[in-house]
Amino acid sequence: MDKINLEQKFAQIPDYWKPRVAAESNGQHVRLAKLKGEFVWHSHDDEDELFIVVKGRLRVRFRDQDVEVCEGEMLVIPRGVEHMPVADEEVHLINITRAETTMTGNVDSDRAIPISQLQKV
Amino acid sequence: MDKINLEQKFAQIPDYWKPRVAAESNGQHVRLAKLKGEFVWHSHDDEDELFIVVKGRLRVRFRDQDVEVCEGEMLVIPRGVEHMPVADEEVHLINITRAETTMTGNVDSDRAIPISQLQKV
Repeated sequence: MDKINLEQKFAQIPDYWKPRVAAESNGQHVRLAKLKGEFVWHSHDDEDELFIVVKGRLRVRFRDQDVEVCEGEMLVIPRGVEHMPVADEEVHLINITRAETTMTGNVDSDRAIPISQLQKV
Repeated sequence: MDKINLEQKFAQIPDYWKPRVAAESNGQHVRLAKLKGEFVWHSHDDEDELFIVVKGRLRVRFRDQDVEVCEGEMLVIPRGVEHMPVADEEVHLINITRAETTMTGNVDSDRAIPISQLQKV
């Protein structure tokens, strides 16, 4: 029954685009990630993703628009919708999704860390 | 594809202990609630609850300990564990749990708003 201090957890993450699992609830991972730069276009066939930005400004590109998600804001990326996260400056992100959700969904990419290799924080 | 600004959403909530549904993701509700005072002892047989405190300090009482969850901290309440949230001062809480999770779980209480009557925000 340990509470999780987000700032302390983010301080333990030294690298970008390497989510850490901070908690699990109802089969969902609470993943914390530092982001900087562009990710890759992808979608998840069967999983929604909940993004909560706790630091910085995340630009989520969709095929028809960009959505800027700032500190204190959240966004649900519905399953099946192509998107590409872009962090022009460092972003601290809470990503809540099903525990089996891979980072790049339907796209093979060396940017995706296999679920079995996701570290805890 | 609308982002959700937490501060703006909380500003629209006038009352305590009346969660609003701000989003849904993978069958889970993202509920926003203002809390003040004591709730009731209860547990949820089949659902975990993820609490993220965005303002104030929430005391979560368990039968064997209290856990204080402050701004920028989160806590998972595992299914089956009796707890009682207490907000000595106003708390703004994100509560993420399955969409069918009732407010007082296995306890009948007039403090529980029926799922069908939960409002959106």
